[in-house]
Amino acid sequence: MRFETLSVFPGVFEPYLSTSIMGRAREAGIFEFEAYDLRDWTHDRHRTVDDAPFGGGAGMLMAAPPFFESIADISSRGDAKPHVVFFSPAGRPFDEACARELSERDRVLLVCGRYEGIDERAFSLADEVISLGDYVLTGGELAAMVVIDAVVRLLPGALGDEMSSVDESFSDGLLEYAQYTRPADYDGMSVPPVLLSGNHAEIAAWRRENALERTALMRPDLLESADISDEERARAMELARMGKRGDVRDG
Amino acid sequence: MRFETLSVFPGVFEPYLSTSIMGRAREAGIFEFEAYDLRDWTHDRHRTVDDAPFGGGAGMLMAAPPFFESIADISSRGDAKPHVVFFSPAGRPFDEACARELSERDRVLLVCGRYEGIDERAFSLADEVISLGDYVLTGGELAAMVVIDAVVRLLPGALGDEMSSVDESFSDGLLEYAQYTRPADYDGMSVPPVLLSGNHAEIAAWRRENALERTALMRPDLLESADISDEERARAMELARMGKRGDVRDG
Repeated sequence: MRFETLSVFPGVFEPYLSTSIMGRAREAGIFEFEAYDLRDWTHDRHRTVDDAPFGGGAGMLMAAPPFFESIADISSRGDAKPHVVFFSPAGRPFDEACARELSERDRVLLVCGRYEGIDERAFSLADEVISLGDYVLTGGELAAMVVIDAVVRLLPGALGDEMSSVDESFSDGLLEYAQYTRPADYDGMSVPPVLLSGNHAEIAAWRRENALERTALMRPDLLESADISDEERARAMELARMGKRGDVRDG
Repeated sequence: MRFETLSVFPGVFEPYLSTSIMGRAREAGIFEFEAYDLRDWTHDRHRTVDDAPFGGGAGMLMAAPPFFESIADISSRGDAKPHVVFFSPAGRPFDEACARELSERDRVLLVCGRYEGIDERAFSLADEVISLGDYVLTGGELAAMVVIDAVVRLLPGALGDEMSSVDESFSDGLLEYAQYTRPADYDGMSVPPVLLSGNHAEIAAWRRENALERTALMRPDLLESADISDEERARAMELARMGKRGDVRDG
């Protein structure tokens, strides 16, 4: 898979994408990355990409022409046209399903705005507009890194043999169950005894119950679309109705 | 304001937080940043922070003791105890209101997990658990950078004179209106004429209408809590019921 970014800070991606799992996945050829500099498609001496908004208002906007020129140019390179993603609070909220869809694509171009925003006409270039969440960032660069990270970890081999993207939050629409490692007792805080029992069926049942309970109490909105049985759903809904009680994290 | 991070990749933050608006805000003393290495609170030669989960399963967990030791140690430094934030899909969804709350604090410690997760007992150290969104990342480092970026831009002076965090998406609970800059006509795509009229009252009315319409069509879920008049709400609800039509971005 190939990720590309288009922004005025092309150097900001490399440090993160060279570290840890991202760095190893790139070295292993699981994904390629290239950062384009939007200013390479400007025609003035100052390589200007921004201008004042029509109608007045604070701040500067990114002008449309450099986006049209750059995306046409970038798209003409390589075999496959990229799937072009813009970021905007008005976009589709990014979630695990969105990450899985993107992970099926061969080539994704992430377009990162800055300043007060991008001239609206440039959004006509987008195949998809994504919102990272209901908050505002100084630019799209972090959003692009979040998307790359969330997608790459779904690619076969990216997490290595020791890790798994199957048994975790959102893989079946539930939050993940609470997890514990050594020591079994730390300063009086102990691990739920069933996890030390060696009884795999009981452990699996405890984990499922814990995942249902955590989801019901902390994110009841997820239950409707979760991949669970009717019986589980009924019990989870009952838990959700009973409302939040004390901390359920400790199981 | 002071941000601190606790993670096993302390070097990953500096490049982003030295660039552009973040870099200038730090140089201007608007925020301070320090990255702690969790491995500094381990006691074995390999500086081990992870271990296999009790009860079996894929991957490694981050053990609790280094978090307890490091957070106690870090909290004892400086005048004020930090507000300790952990990240988890089970946490409070991060949004602009959450960013504004954090921007009121003097000192925030962002704790970044890796691997399959963190021993549940460590979460008892959290003053607040935040979820960046319904997706899974390889670690909390990007989440920490997103939070720092979203919070710092709300701090007085961070955006400079030319920019504004007042007139934008979520500042009144609506999506921001569409914005345009030169050229007025680009390859047949023109700017809504009212924005070129110089009539400030008409421009303000068009922008309010556009923000309402975009929110109603793209994010009707935001309308309930938006800071709008009863009349505006009624009309927006009506628009939302009529459902999505073609692209409203071009106004």
